[in-house]
Amino acid sequence: MTEPQLTFRSTTQQRLLACAATLLEAEGLAAVQARRVARDADCAVGTLYNVFGDIDGLLLAVNAETLGMLGEAVRAGAADVAGLDLRQQLAGLATVYMRFALANRHRWEAVFKHRLPAGREAPASYLEDQARLLAVIEGPLAAVLPDSERRAAAARALFGAVHGIVALALDDRLGGQLKRELEAQLDFITDVTARGLMANAAEAREDGRK
Amino acid sequence: MTEPQLTFRSTTQQRLLACAATLLEAEGLAAVQARRVARDADCAVGTLYNVFGDIDGLLLAVNAETLGMLGEAVRAGAADVAGLDLRQQLAGLATVYMRFALANRHRWEAVFKHRLPAGREAPASYLEDQARLLAVIEGPLAAVLPDSERRAAAARALFGAVHGIVALALDDRLGGQLKRELEAQLDFITDVTARGLMANAAEAREDGRK
Repeated sequence: MTEPQLTFRSTTQQRLLACAATLLEAEGLAAVQARRVARDADCAVGTLYNVFGDIDGLLLAVNAETLGMLGEAVRAGAADVAGLDLRQQLAGLATVYMRFALANRHRWEAVFKHRLPAGREAPASYLEDQARLLAVIEGPLAAVLPDSERRAAAARALFGAVHGIVALALDDRLGGQLKRELEAQLDFITDVTARGLMANAAEAREDGRK
Repeated sequence: MTEPQLTFRSTTQQRLLACAATLLEAEGLAAVQARRVARDADCAVGTLYNVFGDIDGLLLAVNAETLGMLGEAVRAGAADVAGLDLRQQLAGLATVYMRFALANRHRWEAVFKHRLPAGREAPASYLEDQARLLAVIEGPLAAVLPDSERRAAAARALFGAVHGIVALALDDRLGGQLKRELEAQLDFITDVTARGLMANAAEAREDGRK
């Protein structure tokens, strides 16, 4: 008796998730409302609440899917640039991030714009996805930042830096920026940070020898 | 006959602006609704529309005020660090930005979260405020980036980088970051970018000598 029940739940869950993702991709975060998703999935709003708790639960599931897609893209990008010099590795990862944001604009925005109600925390799996993403950035930094705590802060800072440049450019909050201008900015930030990191590492090696 | 009319308009405008700012500071962007602002300002909603066109016009006015406050803070910060080395200047400006965002959280968020309806552009004065802000960041870069186009792109990139780090930390989108962690990230990004910029400039000088 329980198996068809589980299958029903799981199929409905997938259908609701797919309909929410389709709405999000087409119209953006504000369009993903319980009534619209339920109607598109041909089920009752109560069913959506049964399966995901509420609309925030559904949005978290869509965002988890997006983080998974981003993680795959970034890991594939990291594999492509493995073995290149630091600047090329950081530039490669920044380009992957930019392309993902441009190609999945609404999904990507939803990850950063969706707010959980006060007092509610994202599930642990969500935070683990984020940690895995940051770990990919830590990879190329290992040689220049042997201290793991400093390396973790550096990975977060680099992620935040690239994210901020991409987000402002896509928001167009600072005047008419085009894709070429965005690429120039990412090129600049990855170039100077790579150079600065290598200069710091070389100095640390010198100090070690003294 | 026109003068009292103008005074009435201007007083009402200032009262509406002040009430919108108070609402924004206390409750955030979503709370700034025409009906609430008009009620707080003790006037009709129609008067608000007469003066600001619509709620977006009022929000643009509040955001312009915020950009003005940020501009003042950044210019004062730039004066404080003038003459220091590049790393200290960039770190000083990043700290001013972080403090402004922390102290004016809702105002600062509204500048980046408020969206104009599709097809509507921000007024020229708004873009000029942003350009003046970026010009302050360009100041310390003049010595290491003599080319004005590259310097402008670098200033935008550095602003985006610092903005992204601060925004993610305040959003808390990447796990439990505290203020100390935020400071460590800003310290990292300003240190490595300053070092990278100086290394690039030294190399360009060397190339020039050859």
